[in-house]
Amino acid sequence: MTPELAAGLTGRPILPDAVVALGGGHGLSASLAALRRVVDDLTAVVTVADNGGSSGRLREEFGVLPPGDLRMALAALCGDDEWGQTWAKVLQHRFAGDGQMQGHSLGNLLIVALWEQLGEHVDGLDWVGRLLDARGRVLPMTLAGVDLCAEVVGHDPARPDVRSVVRGQVQVATTPGRIVSVSLDPATAPACPEAVGAVTTADWVVLGPGSWYSSVIPHLLVPELREALVETEAKVVVVLNLGEQKGETDGYAPEDHVAALLEHAPGLRIHTVLADVGSVPDPLALEGAVRSLGAELVLADVAVPGSTTQHDPVRLADAYARIFAGVESFAPWR
Amino acid sequence: MTPELAAGLTGRPILPDAVVALGGGHGLSASLAALRRVVDDLTAVVTVADNGGSSGRLREEFGVLPPGDLRMALAALCGDDEWGQTWAKVLQHRFAGDGQMQGHSLGNLLIVALWEQLGEHVDGLDWVGRLLDARGRVLPMTLAGVDLCAEVVGHDPARPDVRSVVRGQVQVATTPGRIVSVSLDPATAPACPEAVGAVTTADWVVLGPGSWYSSVIPHLLVPELREALVETEAKVVVVLNLGEQKGETDGYAPEDHVAALLEHAPGLRIHTVLADVGSVPDPLALEGAVRSLGAELVLADVAVPGSTTQHDPVRLADAYARIFAGVESFAPWR
Repeated sequence: MTPELAAGLTGRPILPDAVVALGGGHGLSASLAALRRVVDDLTAVVTVADNGGSSGRLREEFGVLPPGDLRMALAALCGDDEWGQTWAKVLQHRFAGDGQMQGHSLGNLLIVALWEQLGEHVDGLDWVGRLLDARGRVLPMTLAGVDLCAEVVGHDPARPDVRSVVRGQVQVATTPGRIVSVSLDPATAPACPEAVGAVTTADWVVLGPGSWYSSVIPHLLVPELREALVETEAKVVVVLNLGEQKGETDGYAPEDHVAALLEHAPGLRIHTVLADVGSVPDPLALEGAVRSLGAELVLADVAVPGSTTQHDPVRLADAYARIFAGVESFAPWR
Repeated sequence: MTPELAAGLTGRPILPDAVVALGGGHGLSASLAALRRVVDDLTAVVTVADNGGSSGRLREEFGVLPPGDLRMALAALCGDDEWGQTWAKVLQHRFAGDGQMQGHSLGNLLIVALWEQLGEHVDGLDWVGRLLDARGRVLPMTLAGVDLCAEVVGHDPARPDVRSVVRGQVQVATTPGRIVSVSLDPATAPACPEAVGAVTTADWVVLGPGSWYSSVIPHLLVPELREALVETEAKVVVVLNLGEQKGETDGYAPEDHVAALLEHAPGLRIHTVLADVGSVPDPLALEGAVRSLGAELVLADVAVPGSTTQHDPVRLADAYARIFAGVESFAPWR
């Protein structure tokens, strides 16, 4: 452990390791808001299968990638200074009223304008990052337009045993049925090359937290990205949600989340599973499952106090710093 | 003349004088693109009576000032480096297609988002300026919602002698009739205090070029701004258009433009009138009119070669540098 790494446990200076975080939506944002506090070389790889809201409208109107989750990731990487916090707010600004602009986010429009001006997705996102003085790079998982599809049992509540395919991220995230598996259409969407490169050369890869089937697992459905994740020498950290998510993981124990990941990427080697200490009903069962994969379980206090859904960026940063620093397992539940 | 001012004639270094440029639209943009090359302390005061296009839609949807001319002024103040030129292009980006976003300019939306987030017009514009690393400050002439009105003879071509009132900047700029005078509604709109302050403490004030009745004269219709312009000790430079403008100044000689200004601000003391040397049909007549006001005429080659409407920023910068440096009248026509 280098002195910087050791110091990271308390004062949380920036760690020199290259870290790639994959996910989407609020879960990835919380993870990035934590990681930017402790990591120097940080890359976010973001799900781009959204078909709802402002993103869905822009996707339809301009044939671009849905920018919403990319925007949220960029905002999460803004610094705590006045510059970063002002631009984060402006990026996240949503137009109100009941006119044509209603519900559109300024950041989404800014990203689309850059894409149209520069003709290049990654370059456009890098320019937004430069504007924000973002503490890391934001990349889409693929440059292709993709839709999330799910095999669901009981999508139609009147026919609870019937298995059907549900198409669209919004539809998957809100199905009343039970998700059996998810896929992308097209199934052969090429990965963003810079994302593959970042995963390949990373020291650490962080998967989750986030909507398990609609934000986290989609990364494993892009063949080149899944291969890179399976083959990288980076240590893979899986960050579990604080509980089940209605519509996606009803009835899932923490270990079921890990199993669902591995079903979609059988060769994935997990190094550490991080879970909130207050959100694991049976720590020994989870530890057993994690150990059986050859991985380490870290339980830490990472939730926003009183919340059953939100990770706290500062507490999560502490946990990340400990994990990256290689602090040996702390198992207060034993 | 200071060494810096003298040097300004050739190498065009930055001059230390405080300059305020008033106008709107493309005319003000050309003037600012020139002034930013030769002036350090530069403020643009911008007409905000527009009711058409993206600005008009945003004004109606959100009850904000029309941002379009403010956006153009900010883009004109961007530097020639990659940062400035990229953000200028993004600010000016107009969404295409035939959907809800069609015709909206990203810069307009960015300005409105900042206004809504910060709750303050001038602060919002200053933040955009900071993003762009703009070479000057951009202020609206008033913070109130105003409409331009015109007394027009022959607005209805079927009744060429009838005098009527036309309301709205778009309607005024496109009337087929002859404009007799313009006014603002409300007539008592308070000026933007920072604009009054800038005019009051300026060394030089530049009026024009631009749509004479819809971009230049409106500044003289804001009572506090007109008073500041009449009372300032700054030297006032009036920059004439390259010719008549269809709908606004049909049949106007250059000296008629100056007269129209003074009709709307009787006490205004003009120091210099700048006109394009190739666009003045009768230089002696113009010089006579200008001299009778106690002002100096400067004729210079300031048009884009071959254009009858566009000022060339580099040539205009040369002319400004000469005027601000106090170079005595050059009158090649005599």
